[in-house]
Amino acid sequence: MDIATLIGIVGGFGLIAATIVMGGNAAGFIDPPSIVVVFGGTFASCFIMFPMGVVLKAFKIALKGFFAKSEDPKIMIDQIVALAETARKESLVALEKVAIDDEYLKKGVILVADGTDGDLVRSIMEFEIDAMKKRHFQGQAVMKGMGAMAPAFGMIGTLIGLVQMLSNLSDPDAIGPAMAVALLTTLYGSILANVIFLPLAKKLEERSIEEASYMEIMVEGVVAIQKGEHPSIVKEKLQAFLSPGLRDATA
Amino acid sequence: MDIATLIGIVGGFGLIAATIVMGGNAAGFIDPPSIVVVFGGTFASCFIMFPMGVVLKAFKIALKGFFAKSEDPKIMIDQIVALAETARKESLVALEKVAIDDEYLKKGVILVADGTDGDLVRSIMEFEIDAMKKRHFQGQAVMKGMGAMAPAFGMIGTLIGLVQMLSNLSDPDAIGPAMAVALLTTLYGSILANVIFLPLAKKLEERSIEEASYMEIMVEGVVAIQKGEHPSIVKEKLQAFLSPGLRDATA
Amino acid sequence: MDIATLIGIVGGFGLIAATIVMGGNAAGFIDPPSIVVVFGGTFASCFIMFPMGVVLKAFKIALKGFFAKSEDPKIMIDQIVALAETARKESLVALEKVAIDDEYLKKGVILVADGTDGDLVRSIMEFEIDAMKKRHFQGQAVMKGMGAMAPAFGMIGTLIGLVQMLSNLSDPDAIGPAMAVALLTTLYGSILANVIFLPLAKKLEERSIEEASYMEIMVEGVVAIQKGEHPSIVKEKLQAFLSPGLRDATA
Amino acid sequence: MDIATLIGIVGGFGLIAATIVMGGNAAGFIDPPSIVVVFGGTFASCFIMFPMGVVLKAFKIALKGFFAKSEDPKIMIDQIVALAETARKESLVALEKVAIDDEYLKKGVILVADGTDGDLVRSIMEFEIDAMKKRHFQGQAVMKGMGAMAPAFGMIGTLIGLVQMLSNLSDPDAIGPAMAVALLTTLYGSILANVIFLPLAKKLEERSIEEASYMEIMVEGVVAIQKGEHPSIVKEKLQAFLSPGLRDATA
Amino acid sequence: MDIATLIGIVGGFGLIAATIVMGGNAAGFIDPPSIVVVFGGTFASCFIMFPMGVVLKAFKIALKGFFAKSEDPKIMIDQIVALAETARKESLVALEKVAIDDEYLKKGVILVADGTDGDLVRSIMEFEIDAMKKRHFQGQAVMKGMGAMAPAFGMIGTLIGLVQMLSNLSDPDAIGPAMAVALLTTLYGSILANVIFLPLAKKLEERSIEEASYMEIMVEGVVAIQKGEHPSIVKEKLQAFLSPGLRDATA
Repeated sequence: MDIATLIGIVGGFGLIAATIVMGGNAAGFIDPPSIVVVFGGTFASCFIMFPMGVVLKAFKIALKGFFAKSEDPKIMIDQIVALAETARKESLVALEKVAIDDEYLKKGVILVADGTDGDLVRSIMEFEIDAMKKRHFQGQAVMKGMGAMAPAFGMIGTLIGLVQMLSNLSDPDAIGPAMAVALLTTLYGSILANVIFLPLAKKLEERSIEEASYMEIMVEGVVAIQKGEHPSIVKEKLQAFLSPGLRDATA
Repeated sequence: MDIATLIGIVGGFGLIAATIVMGGNAAGFIDPPSIVVVFGGTFASCFIMFPMGVVLKAFKIALKGFFAKSEDPKIMIDQIVALAETARKESLVALEKVAIDDEYLKKGVILVADGTDGDLVRSIMEFEIDAMKKRHFQGQAVMKGMGAMAPAFGMIGTLIGLVQMLSNLSDPDAIGPAMAVALLTTLYGSILANVIFLPLAKKLEERSIEEASYMEIMVEGVVAIQKGEHPSIVKEKLQAFLSPGLRDATA
Repeated sequence: MDIATLIGIVGGFGLIAATIVMGGNAAGFIDPPSIVVVFGGTFASCFIMFPMGVVLKAFKIALKGFFAKSEDPKIMIDQIVALAETARKESLVALEKVAIDDEYLKKGVILVADGTDGDLVRSIMEFEIDAMKKRHFQGQAVMKGMGAMAPAFGMIGTLIGLVQMLSNLSDPDAIGPAMAVALLTTLYGSILANVIFLPLAKKLEERSIEEASYMEIMVEGVVAIQKGEHPSIVKEKLQAFLSPGLRDATA
Repeated sequence: MDIATLIGIVGGFGLIAATIVMGGNAAGFIDPPSIVVVFGGTFASCFIMFPMGVVLKAFKIALKGFFAKSEDPKIMIDQIVALAETARKESLVALEKVAIDDEYLKKGVILVADGTDGDLVRSIMEFEIDAMKKRHFQGQAVMKGMGAMAPAFGMIGTLIGLVQMLSNLSDPDAIGPAMAVALLTTLYGSILANVIFLPLAKKLEERSIEEASYMEIMVEGVVAIQKGEHPSIVKEKLQAFLSPGLRDATA
Repeated sequence: MDIATLIGIVGGFGLIAATIVMGGNAAGFIDPPSIVVVFGGTFASCFIMFPMGVVLKAFKIALKGFFAKSEDPKIMIDQIVALAETARKESLVALEKVAIDDEYLKKGVILVADGTDGDLVRSIMEFEIDAMKKRHFQGQAVMKGMGAMAPAFGMIGTLIGLVQMLSNLSDPDAIGPAMAVALLTTLYGSILANVIFLPLAKKLEERSIEEASYMEIMVEGVVAIQKGEHPSIVKEKLQAFLSPGLRDATA
């Protein structure tokens, strides 16, 4: 699991909780109807904004993208170089028998072992990258939409609370607590947007860039294998995807 | 009807209504003059922003796009493959007698049956996609415009109410209720924008993308039929439009 | 005159006026110094933002674009088809004697009658379209600039009023009315921006698109006439600019 | 000097001053520490945002662009046509002796007189246009940055004032004036941004477009002279840069 | 060290501190829990937004970009011209023995001395420019993200404080100080965003442009040396990167 995400979520909520508890009246910060109107309203708007299927898929994508651990491109490059050696020493057909964990790489290698043309292999593999980006982009759109709606429903809840409080000022002692409750929805909306939805949308964007780069390594590697390029050339090519500090000395 | 839209609208308004009713003074939330100034002002601005015809058309498009059920691209692909088989076994002319429900597909098939050139068929069909996108884009522009104007008129209403209340502070008991009424327009504007107009604008955008993709399937299918391609090739081509999980095994 | 603009302006101001009058103290909403600081300040900023000539021209363009009635492209197409028939039956030179109301079309037709080359006719006519778009774009920029400045000066006026009120709290009865007056500039700025400047900027954008499309019909028509194309082909070509529902059956 | 800028600045500050004086307590609006924190803070942020040299240059450019009078393109065209006539009647070399006020035009003409190739003349001259645009763009960036920072420091100042006031509510008579002073920084920030920095950024943008167009006239003119084109052709070409109403009748 | 950055930071914080101290109650502005929730929350959100590695790298890049002194392009040009002279008088191989401080230039020169092809040298060197831009862009994204999150957590802190204060209004004397403390988080968030994160993001952008231009000088210079161009031509070429006032007279 991505350790930064864990630190962020635990840290963000922990700090807010600590601030509340230190104030000495933590129970006053939990108001079930306020929770329902902000959470519920945000999800309701989301369903108006996006078709059913998109919303459900977005959450699955978000959770996966949120907690997935980054893959190490160096390990992938080594694996591809090993495949290139096998292909050189034995044959392209021999690749079919190599055990490969990564589903995407496996698909590409089988295409090559089947004797598929290099350009076709590339276009089939790149189609998957585009599809992945599109899925992530939709997930991001849903998260951003909810990040915009949560504070809006927070404000709607606060306005409702203020109108109720102002309509009935007969008991001065009730004014303060009523206004406190009214402000809670704004607080909930603000927390939801800034600790969950907006950072999540951003992380999906970062993940999408990272994953596309990881998949491109595989595309270039598989195409190079299909062309029968020398393993050391394959390695040098793929290392261009790494930042300079991570590269091995040129073979 | 799109079930997500229904859930969203009923859910959004239901939650807001429930919050109000639970506060015990629901009647205080209905103020006809406030309703008139927010709704009316939003529509008035909309008529200044857009030519008459655009506004009226936008609402028709929005309603259609809002409630329309997504078509299933798999069924469309099967239908096109069946047409490709007919064209192969009999002739292109034979397509004229096949019953086709979808108006757009029918138009393309008749063009092909009439012996129209493939490039011309494509350009005529793509012109319709552009026109559809333009219509949806204008609908979106109107919805976004109203989503920006509703809170503005809400604020104008509240300012008017505050000025009236502040000019006449002689009766302290009237201050609270007067301010409650003043806040109502802000509440109305906020609900209109965040539960109706802005999510609607977003859904039109999503629908436009979905519908364009659906129409492109038909364009590619019809052009492939015109070229006399084998039904199994047509199928494989069109399946590229589906996300991997939805595809049939390659024939 | 564009009926939508009329409905919008009368409706928008009417609703605001009605809301104020119903509150029973309409006179309190008119404060000449507040009006002067908001209107004046908005115009002053506008003069800092744009060169003198641009501001004056922008208002002329805005008024024209605001109230101009849309031309009917169908009538224009019929007129061009008639010209194509004259050119076919008689000669290009004969076009010089035909009475043409539209200045832009007339200019193009005279160029053709004078034997100007088709590409040159097109480039001269398209230069005018670009110049029109540029004029409208500058008009829009001025309107948007004022739409941003009006609320800013409204807020400046309110801040001045609040500072004055707070500096002198000795008479409690004067606090309310002083704050009411302070809020008036915010109200004025908000109305100016949302009922006048921002919708006007949007309409200029819409008009610019509409007018460019109308002028492109004339460009394509005049060029087709210059090439001596058959009137029925000219008609079919130009109908591509209309939305499907408005087209005549193909000749 | 650009008369619109003068009207705008005098008008904007004049109206604000008049509003303050009419309120009867003008001295209360001048608070030196508030002025220092808003002005100083805005400049400090600006120095963090941009390298030293960029900030200093930006102010020089802004002042120049702010007060510079627009040049008349018609006079420039006449001058270039006169040069074309000299070149035709005498020779390109003769251009060296003609007195030319505009430094940029002079540089181009000397290049031509020296027998420089037309394409090289164009690329050298266009390099200057790009450099001018880049300078203006940086000036704009600095102005926009300050326009964003001034209200931010205004708000920081107000928050500091409010915290101070709220920490010490023992003297009720001091609350009003303390809050008035707190609001002053917000007022200053708002005036700085909306009367100075943001309109100035906009005017630099407009000036940049205007100046580039003026310089392009010179580029096209000098290149045409280098090619030995007929003065009447040169005139017609350059008039395409003028809006139709300003053009001379074609020679 | 960049003197402007120093002036900005010392000036910005100095002015704020002076304003606070002059108000006479400086201790009231330091509230450790408020500091923790704003700083901590901002960093927590940042960890949710970006993968771990990106955040850590961003701070290193930001610090470097923040304090790095701009290099003088004139000195670099002179150095490259000297190298071009060596290459001319002796040979490309002789370049290997020249002492070069700049790592990037050294790498390029060694490639040339090794007899690498000009296009390959260019593509290897430009790859580094892209990598530098990407690093700076990520640094900017992190700074912008924190600049957006700091005020959000400031507002969350203030809302928590207000709810606590309003829930317990029994002691009127505690209201003012409680509200003062509540406002502190908003103040902290505003200072963090406007004095640190947002200006820093802007400066990284400026630095990135500056550094790319500096590196492009080296690329063009090294490639010119590889082609064996005359030192005076190399100089003239590279001077095109300088603003006109900084150029030497043409050789």
